[in-house]
Amino acid sequence: MSSSSSQNYLKIGIIGFGPFAQFLVKTMIKQGHSIRATSRSDYTDLCTQLGVSFFRDMNQFLESNNDVILLSTSILSLSQVIKSLPLNCLRKPTLFVDVLSVKEYPRDLMLQVLPGDSDVLCTHPMFGPESGRHGWKDLSFMYDKVRITNEATCSSFLQIFASEGCKMMEMSCEEHDKLAARSQFLTHTIGRVLAEMKVEPTPIDTKGFQKLVEVKESTSRDSFDLFSGLFVHNRFAKQQLREVELAFETIKQELLKRMNEELEQS
Amino acid sequence: MSSSSSQNYLKIGIIGFGPFAQFLVKTMIKQGHSIRATSRSDYTDLCTQLGVSFFRDMNQFLESNNDVILLSTSILSLSQVIKSLPLNCLRKPTLFVDVLSVKEYPRDLMLQVLPGDSDVLCTHPMFGPESGRHGWKDLSFMYDKVRITNEATCSSFLQIFASEGCKMMEMSCEEHDKLAARSQFLTHTIGRVLAEMKVEPTPIDTKGFQKLVEVKESTSRDSFDLFSGLFVHNRFAKQQLREVELAFETIKQELLKRMNEELEQS
Ligand SMILES: NC(=O)c1ccc[n+]([C@@H]2O[C@H](COP(=O)([O-])OP(=O)(O)OC[C@H]3O[C@@H](n4cnc5c(N)ncnc54)[C@H](OP(=O)(O)O)[C@@H]3O)[C@@H](O)[C@H]2O)c1
Ligand SMILES: NC(=O)c1ccc[n+]([C@@H]2O[C@H](COP(=O)([O-])OP(=O)(O)OC[C@H]3O[C@@H](n4cnc5c(N)ncnc54)[C@H](OP(=O)(O)O)[C@@H]3O)[C@@H](O)[C@H]2O)c1
Repeated sequence: MSSSSSQNYLKIGIIGFGPFAQFLVKTMIKQGHSIRATSRSDYTDLCTQLGVSFFRDMNQFLESNNDVILLSTSILSLSQVIKSLPLNCLRKPTLFVDVLSVKEYPRDLMLQVLPGDSDVLCTHPMFGPESGRHGWKDLSFMYDKVRITNEATCSSFLQIFASEGCKMMEMSCEEHDKLAARSQFLTHTIGRVLAEMKVEPTPIDTKGFQKLVEVKESTSRDSFDLFSGLFVHNRFAKQQLREVELAFETIKQELLKRMNEELEQS
Repeated sequence: MSSSSSQNYLKIGIIGFGPFAQFLVKTMIKQGHSIRATSRSDYTDLCTQLGVSFFRDMNQFLESNNDVILLSTSILSLSQVIKSLPLNCLRKPTLFVDVLSVKEYPRDLMLQVLPGDSDVLCTHPMFGPESGRHGWKDLSFMYDKVRITNEATCSSFLQIFASEGCKMMEMSCEEHDKLAARSQFLTHTIGRVLAEMKVEPTPIDTKGFQKLVEVKESTSRDSFDLFSGLFVHNRFAKQQLREVELAFETIKQELLKRMNEELEQS
């Protein structure tokens, strides 16, 4: 990789211009990359404000000579979106990158659907509009170089995150999904349980409870599509849901046992 | 209350010299109060180091002319401890204060067992050795002046916390227990569930997950007696345990429904 890689400005086409893509492009634009986007909904006005070229027509989008095509659709819609791409419109071998919060699933779909001469990079920035609002320094960025022939373009893309100070974590999609089921999916599950209970700050919050309220608030800001995607398309998530249930049952039984012991004594 | 109240040094006798009492006395000693202690276990050596007079004999402890007697036993042992006090040894009307993490239960026990001329102040510092290790500023201190005739002594005691910058929250024991079941007990329950699952930091932690790991670690540092006390002696806790279970079941069903919808589509 040449030492001037951080000055390699990329033409990045984004498919799925939802909250997360809108968050990512701000930094990409700041760094000087040229951004194009397409999405199910019309983001023409927002894109004009941001300095992004928005394409309503998918053929034109794919024909527009992107170095990188970034998939940022919801997990649940990726299959439908990727299978309907008019891939014959691609003008050159292209690096496809996804940022989905699960990793084996988009890897398998990309390998199955994309032309053999496209490169495939699976990534997961472990942060979002909330946790990354004061910059990306020291936040983790996971990636797996699934099929890379053009190392220069891949490096230039990774440099977007490395140069902001992200902790660059190379690991397999499988390893990611195992770890994320036990961390991120678990966090979202607890956040959703607290939201379902409608917990709110009290005048006598402990520090620990304040942290739970923060978890509730940040996870509820993400779409329910995102949360269900973490479950439906991560094969390790079901086991974690069972483990939460079992652990809760164990704790509950210990409490009830103590309660009975106390009642017997008094 | 005289304006010099913060200079009223108190003779404070502590019953139950466990982790929380050891944490509190450091600040009390720093402020110039004279501390005595007694406990089930022998803390003579530790007390010598701290500058606290330790009494193995409960009669001598009660005879030692305390202005305040602070109950800091575990929730589960309070009944046994308070009912076995040789109260005839008290030399004068005394202010009894408790710091238990539930409030209706010690209030009822104190009103039932203590002599009618003792004052009763129920308190709950909403912090501990962990969350209060860098000082008590802006941390909540809940109290209920259940039976106070000697306002000066009560004020001097409260001043210990007010002068450190605590948020002084006066509220009824009932209101406390309602709120704490939904905040502190809930936090401990989730912390214990995470500990039971043995969750650990991963190389790709999100910020939210890091908060959960902190909650797990700080709640597991407290004794299981403390946690079960929060459940057994707070009449609002059982309802919260049911609510967690129901909310979890709702979230689980939503996830399974999404999963089935996805399977049907593919
Ligand atoms: N939010 C985060 O903090 C975060 C962090 C890391 C990774 N991610 C990943 O980034 C991706 C985007 O996340 P997000 O937060 O923006 O919200 P999301 O709800 O997961 O995805 C929203 C995006 O999906 C598109 N979409 C949804 N259903 C669609 C359908 N049926 N057909 C076509 N497009 C559809 C939306 O298009 P329209 O907007 O055009 O309707 C929008 O662009 C997800 O895969 C997520 O896992 C998110
Ligand atoms: N830790 C906190 O952050 C915190 C914060 C606010 C309020 N509190 C409250 O403060 C009190 C003390 O808490 P803690 O953290 O020190 O731990 P704890 O486990 O709740 O209580 C330990 C204390 O209880 C005594 N004890 C336990 N069983 C006993 C028995 N059968 N007979 C006589 N004494 C017995 C212990 O005596 P020995 O040490 O002599 O064995 C020790 O002094 C609790 O009521 C708790 O709810 C704690």
